[in-house]
Amino acid sequence: MVKIGIVGGTGYTGVELLRLLARHPLAELAAITSRKEAGMPVAEMFPSLRGVVNLAFSEPDEATLGACDVVFFATPHGVAMNMGPALVKAGVKVIDLAADFRLKDTAVFEKWYKMPHSAPELLAEAVYGLPEVNRGAIRNARVIGLPGCYPTSVQLGLKPALEAGLIDVTHLIADCKSGVSGAGRKAEIGALFSEAGDNFKAYGLSGHRHHPEIVQGLSSIAGQPVGLIFTPHLTPMIRGIHSTIYARITKEADFQKLYEDAYRGEPFVDVMPAGSTPDTRSVRGANTCRLAVHRPGNGDTLVILSVIDNLTKGAAGQAVQVMNLMCGLPETTGLEGIGLVP
Amino acid sequence: MVKIGIVGGTGYTGVELLRLLARHPLAELAAITSRKEAGMPVAEMFPSLRGVVNLAFSEPDEATLGACDVVFFATPHGVAMNMGPALVKAGVKVIDLAADFRLKDTAVFEKWYKMPHSAPELLAEAVYGLPEVNRGAIRNARVIGLPGCYPTSVQLGLKPALEAGLIDVTHLIADCKSGVSGAGRKAEIGALFSEAGDNFKAYGLSGHRHHPEIVQGLSSIAGQPVGLIFTPHLTPMIRGIHSTIYARITKEADFQKLYEDAYRGEPFVDVMPAGSTPDTRSVRGANTCRLAVHRPGNGDTLVILSVIDNLTKGAAGQAVQVMNLMCGLPETTGLEGIGLVP
Amino acid sequence: MVKIGIVGGTGYTGVELLRLLARHPLAELAAITSRKEAGMPVAEMFPSLRGVVNLAFSEPDEATLGACDVVFFATPHGVAMNMGPALVKAGVKVIDLAADFRLKDTAVFEKWYKMPHSAPELLAEAVYGLPEVNRGAIRNARVIGLPGCYPTSVQLGLKPALEAGLIDVTHLIADCKSGVSGAGRKAEIGALFSEAGDNFKAYGLSGHRHHPEIVQGLSSIAGQPVGLIFTPHLTPMIRGIHSTIYARITKEADFQKLYEDAYRGEPFVDVMPAGSTPDTRSVRGANTCRLAVHRPGNGDTLVILSVIDNLTKGAAGQAVQVMNLMCGLPETTGLEGIGLVP
Amino acid sequence: MVKIGIVGGTGYTGVELLRLLARHPLAELAAITSRKEAGMPVAEMFPSLRGVVNLAFSEPDEATLGACDVVFFATPHGVAMNMGPALVKAGVKVIDLAADFRLKDTAVFEKWYKMPHSAPELLAEAVYGLPEVNRGAIRNARVIGLPGCYPTSVQLGLKPALEAGLIDVTHLIADCKSGVSGAGRKAEIGALFSEAGDNFKAYGLSGHRHHPEIVQGLSSIAGQPVGLIFTPHLTPMIRGIHSTIYARITKEADFQKLYEDAYRGEPFVDVMPAGSTPDTRSVRGANTCRLAVHRPGNGDTLVILSVIDNLTKGAAGQAVQVMNLMCGLPETTGLEGIGLVP
Repeated sequence: MVKIGIVGGTGYTGVELLRLLARHPLAELAAITSRKEAGMPVAEMFPSLRGVVNLAFSEPDEATLGACDVVFFATPHGVAMNMGPALVKAGVKVIDLAADFRLKDTAVFEKWYKMPHSAPELLAEAVYGLPEVNRGAIRNARVIGLPGCYPTSVQLGLKPALEAGLIDVTHLIADCKSGVSGAGRKAEIGALFSEAGDNFKAYGLSGHRHHPEIVQGLSSIAGQPVGLIFTPHLTPMIRGIHSTIYARITKEADFQKLYEDAYRGEPFVDVMPAGSTPDTRSVRGANTCRLAVHRPGNGDTLVILSVIDNLTKGAAGQAVQVMNLMCGLPETTGLEGIGLVP
Repeated sequence: MVKIGIVGGTGYTGVELLRLLARHPLAELAAITSRKEAGMPVAEMFPSLRGVVNLAFSEPDEATLGACDVVFFATPHGVAMNMGPALVKAGVKVIDLAADFRLKDTAVFEKWYKMPHSAPELLAEAVYGLPEVNRGAIRNARVIGLPGCYPTSVQLGLKPALEAGLIDVTHLIADCKSGVSGAGRKAEIGALFSEAGDNFKAYGLSGHRHHPEIVQGLSSIAGQPVGLIFTPHLTPMIRGIHSTIYARITKEADFQKLYEDAYRGEPFVDVMPAGSTPDTRSVRGANTCRLAVHRPGNGDTLVILSVIDNLTKGAAGQAVQVMNLMCGLPETTGLEGIGLVP
Repeated sequence: MVKIGIVGGTGYTGVELLRLLARHPLAELAAITSRKEAGMPVAEMFPSLRGVVNLAFSEPDEATLGACDVVFFATPHGVAMNMGPALVKAGVKVIDLAADFRLKDTAVFEKWYKMPHSAPELLAEAVYGLPEVNRGAIRNARVIGLPGCYPTSVQLGLKPALEAGLIDVTHLIADCKSGVSGAGRKAEIGALFSEAGDNFKAYGLSGHRHHPEIVQGLSSIAGQPVGLIFTPHLTPMIRGIHSTIYARITKEADFQKLYEDAYRGEPFVDVMPAGSTPDTRSVRGANTCRLAVHRPGNGDTLVILSVIDNLTKGAAGQAVQVMNLMCGLPETTGLEGIGLVP
Repeated sequence: MVKIGIVGGTGYTGVELLRLLARHPLAELAAITSRKEAGMPVAEMFPSLRGVVNLAFSEPDEATLGACDVVFFATPHGVAMNMGPALVKAGVKVIDLAADFRLKDTAVFEKWYKMPHSAPELLAEAVYGLPEVNRGAIRNARVIGLPGCYPTSVQLGLKPALEAGLIDVTHLIADCKSGVSGAGRKAEIGALFSEAGDNFKAYGLSGHRHHPEIVQGLSSIAGQPVGLIFTPHLTPMIRGIHSTIYARITKEADFQKLYEDAYRGEPFVDVMPAGSTPDTRSVRGANTCRLAVHRPGNGDTLVILSVIDNLTKGAAGQAVQVMNLMCGLPETTGLEGIGLVP
């Protein structure tokens, strides 16, 4: 049994981790910490876990966490880079669901997250936890920067076309729509039911933290710098991201076949038949990225539709997938859940 | 033109007041105050008002407010009772949308609102602003305690049967369902889209502030103390209250006819034909209370369905209706809006 | 492995059965029939099942179904009573999720479902599939009438108090709120997003088919005829039922303890601590009924809150629970899913 | 008073027309026809209109309609072109909210709407009813093809940049998101609450009827053929369209100033300050198109955000605006409603 610690389990990625790990046949929850809620039974905050998770939140304690095999950070940015080095030294595998280990350039990190990076050496060895891109490195990693939700959907959507060198990488467009849980479990006016409900809007056009992350990832996949317009939108649903990606075709190909070949054998990427339009609910609570490839009017624009559940494949599910890889377990263990429809 | 001041216009009752008053043909907005947002144009916070409301929020200023004909308090509890006495002395009509002037017994007020009442004399003369019950007194009032949203729907639902003395007043049940905007425009976890969306729950069973208010109102209508079970629920919609009211019949009557007769001529209460079930959207944004009267299986239980928009007839619309009465204007002025369907 | 047939798998209870059975470790899907969709791969209609369910819908065929161990009917009323007798004769266990085997009195069935009952002998031996009431009989049954969704939530809510004889059974009130999936996957105006969304209404006050079923069940539990006012409402969420149940207390007791004792050991009924208010999302996709018991103002009215997922404990999950019992499997097999929150 | 007839008032554009016209101070409803619902009081179908609209649906009758000043067709495609010629001959102004008079090329119409055009001469004189583009021609028109909802939002979003010749017209992208009411009040599985709720998907990538209409409109504005990728999406809200439009900049300009200048004085187009992101709710029930212009990273891509209420500025409100112009009334009469927020 893999012994698990979770730092900061009171948010949405936290409760999603608990939902998945509580039923993981080869993992065992050892500790869930929350400075603010220490002492409160987890199932009191999340009654869905009554009878399933019997732990209470505890103070983050180095000894307890250091005795775990894997520690997940479902915290705000800045926590993992402070606590991570000691844990890694203690032989614990660290998986950060926040941004501390995503951006390789500390200057970029500091510009977007408004804090100096306190663990640049650990950042240097950290692996970007997108298994469909980095599976080998993940297996051997000690510390993982787990991709953001938007970045997961966009990178999986563009990877085959980029690797094949078939599109203009200087003018990519990702028009992304996210459910409100992406904003986290924080008391903010903009995420209120009466604000976000029955309403649709763009945000972050002047700069979103996932922009440099997506650009870094796409550039790495393409082997050259890419140019990207990224427009996130807030849509009145709880879970789900739908990315509609536009790219100019520069070389002819059978894109449907390209995508099917590229993802054949991937347990968590599903390329739908030509002409399909994936809906977000088909992956609700599932660790799947579902893709469709279109070429309207048979013209020179490729339109890729990519859906994930932002809390599952976009966060906690991917974290468990990465844990499985790091611990030598079958990659799909504990991740067999089917999308909840309707 | 009636010169209007609004204290605290940044919440949902505030923006609803602005929506209604901006198109009121006989009213003129003179000032909207918010200590926190002073200086910000109202239309910057609420872009729906761009090109319509050109005021900015200002510091609450006694001189400006004292020069108004009517001042509305769309504030948290405790503000109106502090600022009200000076305004009334200055000849301003005061309409409080919070609870400062609702409960006649200061001890009850203090128990439920956890603060001493600072203006008991003004409270003594204050009129409970439910026009269908108190129209005459409202016309002559200087200060109004506007009913809460739940209390409006329940009192209008029970009034005819209570006045006619046909039901057991000791065991009334009001099972009420409210949209999330009833929780106000406050950053609270429980009102987040991802908490309140696609979810349904009861709350406040151990005691809700509207309980003593409803009991006070029903007892006054019935001419005797009433007993009431009040169960509020949160339902995943933005606006609307649906009260399902149960009462044991003690004397036979044609209840359909009773209700139609009781509300004939009332501009804002609509008794539907026998067998109907009103839906909340039929009053979305409208100042209407829509009622239906049922007697399942022709038994001895009366079931009354009562719907309002909690922000309109349950707050800002009723406030404008009361203002019209106080100022000698036709009661329906500025309140002709039709429910937005779909 | 239990060999499973599903008749009529194109509705919401059908896809929920598929979701649960596809991951059931001791069951194997042998056939899914739909006259209308015969030939269409199941995963084409429900892409959430891509890569998981590889069957296509087939014509309902007696030989194929007759070779199954268990056949579920997720059909409209009237199908199971026609196909059931032959299947039972062939040794197949039949579980009807529709109403054909719920009402013991064929006259009552015919009144509410507007069709003669074509299998009265089978009806006579059929067992009402509510495990918390009928566990023993279910184990030995050949044919099951699975409870409706509302009836499940109301009967589980009232059982302890009724059995203990502590409440007035002549005037029970069940004020129930259902998500829209309860209306089924049928093209009807009233269930459109633009009709049911951001809206709340009662319906069925003049008579709902679940009323006689609940009365039959409660009378059986109480050992005497009960009187019930049942008011269903439509609430803008997809899954979930919240029943708020009112009963007059006739004998003193510690109701919290009574309920905890009554359901101790039940794997799928969770009595929350005193003062709690269960929310429907805590059981989203889970086979749990979550209860809370209140006594407002310590008066003589008992208020019971009961939540289920109408498609899981209210239909498909309960069907699998019943199948486990009938086949001698551990009762919770395949039903360990945790409520999807948020 | 302008005497009004409405053919086909049972859909969402119909009830929206009724909501607006019932309060229009210079219009009078003379007849509302529906073959299917003839005899039913309008307010029985739409209780929001109780006490406001006292008409019943009637059989479409040439004499009654011929005595109107203006007849609106809120019907499926194909009705207006059949009934229109006789009405126009009788001196009635005809406004078709469906597609019969939108596409100038009958071959294109026939390809997309699968029916021959029965009134090509009337089509030849019909005016495309987008006031911000065609105000003069509308004033003098006898028959109007009212723009579709998507086409309204996209054309208003691109007009200033196209007219100024500053963008590459060969590769425009319109990524559009619509509320579910855009699908109409038709009993279809895909528009059910349990299908469209808490879900997001693209549709129509292989061809949407609004594509040729938008291309026709944009080409006319640009004075040259344009190339357009149009991706509609369904978003879980009732009303509202959000178009996110991408264009490559070919000539430098101050786009913010360009847009503000272009729409200065337009009563129903609001260009927001630089950096803004309009939300659909700000125009809920209002006849406004709200725009924002962005240039991410100061690069060569223009991103225009355009929101309307699909039923108001996208249909019924625009129809009333056009009627006002045709009848010589002030353009804003009856259209002063403010967006319903929250």
